[in-house]
Amino acid sequence: MKLERIKKVFNHICNHIFSTNPPEAVLLINEGFKSSNFNYITGLGQGVFENCGVLFEDGGRVCIFTTSLEEEILRGVNGKAEFIVYRTKEQRNSKLKEVLEGYSSVGICYESVPYSLYNALKEIAPKTEFVDVSRAFRMARMIKLQDEIDSISEACRIVSEVADEVPSILKEGMTELDLVAEIDYQVMKRGAERPAFKTIVSFNANTSKPHYEGGNVSLKKGYVVLVDFGAVYGGYVSDITRTYLTGNPSPEVVKLYSVVRKAQDIALGLIGSGVKVGEVEEEVKRYVDSQEQYRDRFIHSLGHSLGLDVHDDSYPGEDFGKQFSENMVLTVEPGIYIPGFCGIRIEDDILVEGNSCRILTTAKKEPLSYGI
Amino acid sequence: MKLERIKKVFNHICNHIFSTNPPEAVLLINEGFKSSNFNYITGLGQGVFENCGVLFEDGGRVCIFTTSLEEEILRGVNGKAEFIVYRTKEQRNSKLKEVLEGYSSVGICYESVPYSLYNALKEIAPKTEFVDVSRAFRMARMIKLQDEIDSISEACRIVSEVADEVPSILKEGMTELDLVAEIDYQVMKRGAERPAFKTIVSFNANTSKPHYEGGNVSLKKGYVVLVDFGAVYGGYVSDITRTYLTGNPSPEVVKLYSVVRKAQDIALGLIGSGVKVGEVEEEVKRYVDSQEQYRDRFIHSLGHSLGLDVHDDSYPGEDFGKQFSENMVLTVEPGIYIPGFCGIRIEDDILVEGNSCRILTTAKKEPLSYGI
Repeated sequence: MKLERIKKVFNHICNHIFSTNPPEAVLLINEGFKSSNFNYITGLGQGVFENCGVLFEDGGRVCIFTTSLEEEILRGVNGKAEFIVYRTKEQRNSKLKEVLEGYSSVGICYESVPYSLYNALKEIAPKTEFVDVSRAFRMARMIKLQDEIDSISEACRIVSEVADEVPSILKEGMTELDLVAEIDYQVMKRGAERPAFKTIVSFNANTSKPHYEGGNVSLKKGYVVLVDFGAVYGGYVSDITRTYLTGNPSPEVVKLYSVVRKAQDIALGLIGSGVKVGEVEEEVKRYVDSQEQYRDRFIHSLGHSLGLDVHDDSYPGEDFGKQFSENMVLTVEPGIYIPGFCGIRIEDDILVEGNSCRILTTAKKEPLSYGI
Repeated sequence: MKLERIKKVFNHICNHIFSTNPPEAVLLINEGFKSSNFNYITGLGQGVFENCGVLFEDGGRVCIFTTSLEEEILRGVNGKAEFIVYRTKEQRNSKLKEVLEGYSSVGICYESVPYSLYNALKEIAPKTEFVDVSRAFRMARMIKLQDEIDSISEACRIVSEVADEVPSILKEGMTELDLVAEIDYQVMKRGAERPAFKTIVSFNANTSKPHYEGGNVSLKKGYVVLVDFGAVYGGYVSDITRTYLTGNPSPEVVKLYSVVRKAQDIALGLIGSGVKVGEVEEEVKRYVDSQEQYRDRFIHSLGHSLGLDVHDDSYPGEDFGKQFSENMVLTVEPGIYIPGFCGIRIEDDILVEGNSCRILTTAKKEPLSYGI
């Protein structure tokens, strides 16, 4: 159990969010869908732990709820915690009742508790007040600890190596799904636990659909190839996009690429601790709009926070004064998408460090043309 | 848009669940986490469609809420639906308000709406009553339509072929993660959209952890090898487990394998439309308990329903009189796990057909010993 994280989350809860009336304990349950908050607190990487839960106090009791199915793995993590093992949901709920009745207020995450589970908790423990601690988790997870940065850096190394391999993998006639298979295989062979998300590969006109799900289009010389993929290492993810121009790309495509490349450089050059998110986005938009034919084409947001989840959060919002802060890990991924023609996106993962940022994904972005 | 499904879900809502007062429309929104109900209704396979939504009436209005990011893909699916396109959540909510105010009651899924979103909806449309339609979706999705069965069958063909290949892939010295990479690659090369879940590979003592996340243990002759993996095809999943005994397995392991194999055969021989789930589970448990050394070792449930999700649902419950019914697709996966020694699990996917079931995963379960 990551005691440092329990402390950190409780610190947020007590000092920032509920300074007058913090909850006595926090309860996380994986029911219906899985929240990475459970993994964050337990340090358990990417497991699902369906119907498992953890209740913890600030520096005090840690109580793990688990089905017998997951008991062995969870005991390996922390044999010292209190263990409540059950087979059925009814058994769990009756144990939960005993535990919850000992508290007058318990923090839960409104953002990851289905409404049906909320109703069940209210029925199980009608006298306990359930307050929202989603924001505390989001704030804690936004600022990465050193072990998190180490895992993400390794995940970034893996995808960078693979991205640099992609040009040599491209072959005329291969389908988008063939390339997905090759990329995922390379990601795994380099030590990833799994691809971080469903690898996106799109050829030519399909590149204009930012979330296209690769299919059976075959690669022809001259096509634009967009790949967007990630790796999981130590439970943490990376996320990279590269766009390759094959054959003899048209001047229009080369121009589009150079505009996106420049847009990304502008963002990367500006990001640093204390810098306003809006200023960076504004600068990028201003530049793209200054290119006559691409005015108003910058529609995607600039990126998102990375961590246990690929979309760990959006860019820093109100909680951080809408500013970049030390030890945030974010993607920077400007893209311009022209339906029916093509889309170009370049995505890197960065760590905010002092006045600037460190680029964790080091894959090449040049040369533009690959002569398959 | 799958009109047949809209009709089916509404039929459940109107006739079975809210016979006196069905909602006027149903609203699905993907916020915070993704529910496959959106994919089920739109027929859109596995996409995430973050922050997108759909509102539909019975045979009437179909209204798609989408960010500009996903617009092109969604228009490709159904250009005839009403489209509401937005960039920010605020814009979406204001559009949502206009639409919701036209209804006095709207069905939502309590099981997949985070409590925070429920609160937001109540604030957006305070006069609209939001009733729970989770059960209607669960019931509709439990009974597969022909196009769903076709997709699952294809996903089962893929994993069966790969499972039959595994013995020839095994090499002394390879790690669990090496084997994961090989299996996933084979799954993709055979036409899957992606592996259905994080492939589980465990060697020897690790096989006793049913949800073990493969690591760096190297394969030695004589080890027990457990693989549990799936494929996605047309948005639908398969899920197979095979356990391979390498070298010269000990009599204890061979005995354990044969008990699990027999337990599965008992279940497969009993399942059919109208048969009680409890009867089948009882028979399996009775058999396992009759084997002195494995008494009370049958702790995992017998399986789960398969569909768009790997755990589409549990085995048929109260809604189906706790009986198997025509066109359910389920896994049958008895396992016996002995901590510190090993675990054996054999898992197949079946379709309930008349008085019996059709096994969709056809991979071999014999011979037991592979001489790597």
